[in-house]
Amino acid sequence: METLSPHQIMVLFFSLGILLGTARLLGEIAQRLHQPSILGELIAGVILGPTILGNIAPGASEFLFPLQGPNAIALETIATLAIGLFLLVAGMEVDLSTVWKQGKTGFKVGLASIAVPFFIVLTAALIIPEALGRHADADAMTFALFLAIAMSISALPIIAKTLIDMDFYRSDMGMVVISAAIFNDIVGWIIFAIILGLMGEASGNGTPVMLTIILTLAFIAAMLTAGRWLIHRILPFIQAYTRWPAGELSFALVIGLLGAAFTEWIGIHAILGAFIMGVAIGDSSHLRERSRVIIGDFISFIFAPVFFASIGLKVDFAAHFDLLLVLAILLVAFVCKLAGGTIGAWWGKMSSRESWAVGFAMVSVGAMGIIVGIIALEAGVIRERLFVALIIMAIVTSMVSGPGMRLILRPEKKLRLLDLFSPKLFLPELRSAFRREVIYEMAEAAGNAAGLDAQALGDAVWARETVMSTGIGKGVALPHARIEKLKKSMVVIGISRLGIDFDAPDDKIAHVIFLILTPVDAPEEQLTIAAELSRLFRDPAMLDNILQARSYTDFIALLHAPAPTEPGSAAKNPESP
Amino acid sequence: METLSPHQIMVLFFSLGILLGTARLLGEIAQRLHQPSILGELIAGVILGPTILGNIAPGASEFLFPLQGPNAIALETIATLAIGLFLLVAGMEVDLSTVWKQGKTGFKVGLASIAVPFFIVLTAALIIPEALGRHADADAMTFALFLAIAMSISALPIIAKTLIDMDFYRSDMGMVVISAAIFNDIVGWIIFAIILGLMGEASGNGTPVMLTIILTLAFIAAMLTAGRWLIHRILPFIQAYTRWPAGELSFALVIGLLGAAFTEWIGIHAILGAFIMGVAIGDSSHLRERSRVIIGDFISFIFAPVFFASIGLKVDFAAHFDLLLVLAILLVAFVCKLAGGTIGAWWGKMSSRESWAVGFAMVSVGAMGIIVGIIALEAGVIRERLFVALIIMAIVTSMVSGPGMRLILRPEKKLRLLDLFSPKLFLPELRSAFRREVIYEMAEAAGNAAGLDAQALGDAVWARETVMSTGIGKGVALPHARIEKLKKSMVVIGISRLGIDFDAPDDKIAHVIFLILTPVDAPEEQLTIAAELSRLFRDPAMLDNILQARSYTDFIALLHAPAPTEPGSAAKNPESP
Repeated sequence: METLSPHQIMVLFFSLGILLGTARLLGEIAQRLHQPSILGELIAGVILGPTILGNIAPGASEFLFPLQGPNAIALETIATLAIGLFLLVAGMEVDLSTVWKQGKTGFKVGLASIAVPFFIVLTAALIIPEALGRHADADAMTFALFLAIAMSISALPIIAKTLIDMDFYRSDMGMVVISAAIFNDIVGWIIFAIILGLMGEASGNGTPVMLTIILTLAFIAAMLTAGRWLIHRILPFIQAYTRWPAGELSFALVIGLLGAAFTEWIGIHAILGAFIMGVAIGDSSHLRERSRVIIGDFISFIFAPVFFASIGLKVDFAAHFDLLLVLAILLVAFVCKLAGGTIGAWWGKMSSRESWAVGFAMVSVGAMGIIVGIIALEAGVIRERLFVALIIMAIVTSMVSGPGMRLILRPEKKLRLLDLFSPKLFLPELRSAFRREVIYEMAEAAGNAAGLDAQALGDAVWARETVMSTGIGKGVALPHARIEKLKKSMVVIGISRLGIDFDAPDDKIAHVIFLILTPVDAPEEQLTIAAELSRLFRDPAMLDNILQARSYTDFIALLHAPAPTEPGSAAKNPESP
Repeated sequence: METLSPHQIMVLFFSLGILLGTARLLGEIAQRLHQPSILGELIAGVILGPTILGNIAPGASEFLFPLQGPNAIALETIATLAIGLFLLVAGMEVDLSTVWKQGKTGFKVGLASIAVPFFIVLTAALIIPEALGRHADADAMTFALFLAIAMSISALPIIAKTLIDMDFYRSDMGMVVISAAIFNDIVGWIIFAIILGLMGEASGNGTPVMLTIILTLAFIAAMLTAGRWLIHRILPFIQAYTRWPAGELSFALVIGLLGAAFTEWIGIHAILGAFIMGVAIGDSSHLRERSRVIIGDFISFIFAPVFFASIGLKVDFAAHFDLLLVLAILLVAFVCKLAGGTIGAWWGKMSSRESWAVGFAMVSVGAMGIIVGIIALEAGVIRERLFVALIIMAIVTSMVSGPGMRLILRPEKKLRLLDLFSPKLFLPELRSAFRREVIYEMAEAAGNAAGLDAQALGDAVWARETVMSTGIGKGVALPHARIEKLKKSMVVIGISRLGIDFDAPDDKIAHVIFLILTPVDAPEEQLTIAAELSRLFRDPAMLDNILQARSYTDFIALLHAPAPTEPGSAAKNPESP
């Protein structure tokens, strides 16, 4: 068997580590800037690929990411697997029952959001193919269909995330958007599969197109009915009679891999099979949450960043950047998709404001458009400059989608505890031993940070405290006051290892004290903050964990990455009852 | 960039699906037969590889697992990554503090368990290298060192699992064995690294051996001190300021990949770097359980089976099977390792019986020996027939280790609820509506299954019930009796959707009734079973879940693959507070 040399093995691990590390780092930065993480992941590839590193240090680029030879194949293998597995997870996130529940409105939005851009772009691409960057060898119709689908598909994961962030996910409008996006996804992939079938015939090396299309539709229909039913019946057997969770995890992966192999075999891309298998297995209520988390997290956070970064390695984005083309593609995609979604929502009798919001939600092309683009490039249907334009379009539409919705819906800003804290307001070793002193000690920190009179702050909190003590039990106290000149709520965190008597109902002394200061003109915020803070301590381990926090970072880590509710046993004890 | 053709992509997904599916299926069967799952995984490769499929249907074998070309490289890439990641997880499972706690005894066992086989095998291999299957081109000393290390390393994961199964994991003896196995692992890999360094020099293409050894030891020392400290400090930052759990997962993977690249670069194998990085990160108390589970499960249950199955693809096990050599290797390994462990335990002043048990525990060569073997084969140090003998030895020593310990320690058989149930004792729709009738209805099922008089069983249970009712609340009742002629405890499961009044302390009617029958001569079993059953209902969702179970399989699935304690939120809500 052909083996990799030690040098090739070293390059494999090194390049993968660098690619994953850079992709995740820039993905994190993108998220900090309220952008989709896929933006950062793509930029990682652009930096490490021919666009930047290849120009600055061709040797380093050739060393890490050679274009030929075993290491090129190795990276291509990982990227291919990654995209297949990513679509498996994307499919698992599809909830078919949502589509049924929202019924007609979701269907109308989904249909319009794909039909409007599809036919407009199709027409344009048939009229001016050269201007749009058609590859000289590519069939005119194939090219037009490809471009049309790349610009009409929607990015379900990004749409879902935007809705969750704005707290609209569970609203009626949210469900319409999600069901429309699912509809758009499934129909989009089916049309895409048909195009790939046409292409296989056009290139002469493949199954006849009608057979491919029939097999594709038969596969989808079978998997979403009988296959789904069968998987739902098989899962309890796997849970009952195989090692948990090994059996369930490998079952999901194996059917995903075999589904991918099947669709690739009948002449369309592997990702469709993985996606449909994901829908079929993800739809079963028997699939356990633990399996969803393990598969979803590992693939979304390890495989997917590697895939999206690897896209940037394929093309020199600077050399093939064509400003006019980028602007044209972007404008057409934005207008068509916004119009499609909005018209669909109007058609579904939604209010004008909601319709525009739905339109903006459906604008996002994101990951799905990128995947269509890369397949078109590799199939030789489009040229690099159109590919670059499509990628930029996919990203920019995802970037404007959320802000557009925010502008229209003006959601209430969600209170996030993390926004109320700051390192200056973290007192890990309270000096004082008594309630009154502690309040003034903490008020001093608040006064310094907010530029207010610490004494006055302390007086206000102490006045409130004397009315009724604020120890809430379980070792926590929440002294608080509304402050006239305060512009923005703030919370001082004080930790006392000795403990301070806050006269709690359970007679326990307080070890963690949160001093809550809110502006007078936001009367409800005090209660919201207090509720959020006391919610943290529903986990009985939280108090101990906080007492062990040595720094502000340790403290934030505890809130952000919660300690597990299933203590320890899961990993160490591979056997169930 | 070199891309994979559609046919190659199809083969990639198909072969991987088949390989993973077969490996996991046979791994499950092996576990059912109380054998290590790695046995089944290896056999999967033997079946799909040259040994069986290659002989029966060479075309199919060549189609799925070609020996040359992009698909061979693709599979090799995946196997290489898999083994690196598997060692990362193996390292993460190492608990350094255990080693320190057990101090001298663990050290003595660890030292003896590696030194005794190492020097005996080394001597033998230097005297009769040809008889032991040395490759003609291989350096005599390199060969002898390789063989010696392959036969003295121990399989920490298999040893840990055997101890857990026997409930000895937390005992003093268990901790001695675990710390000895960790010591053995670390020292074994270091010696192995040195041998690889020697080999690099011998083959002329590598760093000078002394430099490799110094760099290796410096790397290990640095990572287990400063590196470990640094990782422990960095983790809270990652938890606090990156997306959870994406940041932590990718951090662990990235340092594992870079560690692997580093050790490969200095001239030893990538797995050492991955292993040491795993130890360094796994040792941090800041690493969250969720990350351990996601990385551990995905890699152990997906990557590892693919790797172990791929070993069987490399060699024709039948053609290179040399009975005499297999027996010789097996006998030498078994005797030397048993002696080494036992002597070490005696030296550590353990009792004679415990010493023998420790000896048997340390006999298991398992996965670690297999990995050393495959590297030696690929490096051209050993011939196929010795490779086959080593693999068989690694597996057989793992198979006899557990039974040997059982024979010596005679652990009490652990009560497993699953052994008390059977499909015949599962009554998903109780007909009766009253307490007395239900007891006789369930007693009938028990009587039929055990061949006893149902009326008498019912009388016994009812007599007990009239003394004091057995409704324990929360919708559960546990009627029970000790039965004269009964040989083995049994539990009848009855589900009543309408509910039956069992006079529970919380006044709730019982929906799930367990009829517990135990032999008279096992007086404590009744209480144990009752405690185990009521423990199931600590999760408030369990009752509802059981009421939805339509079949015995559904019911067993609920016990075996527990529904999550964090309901639903984890996967859908990517953002923390």
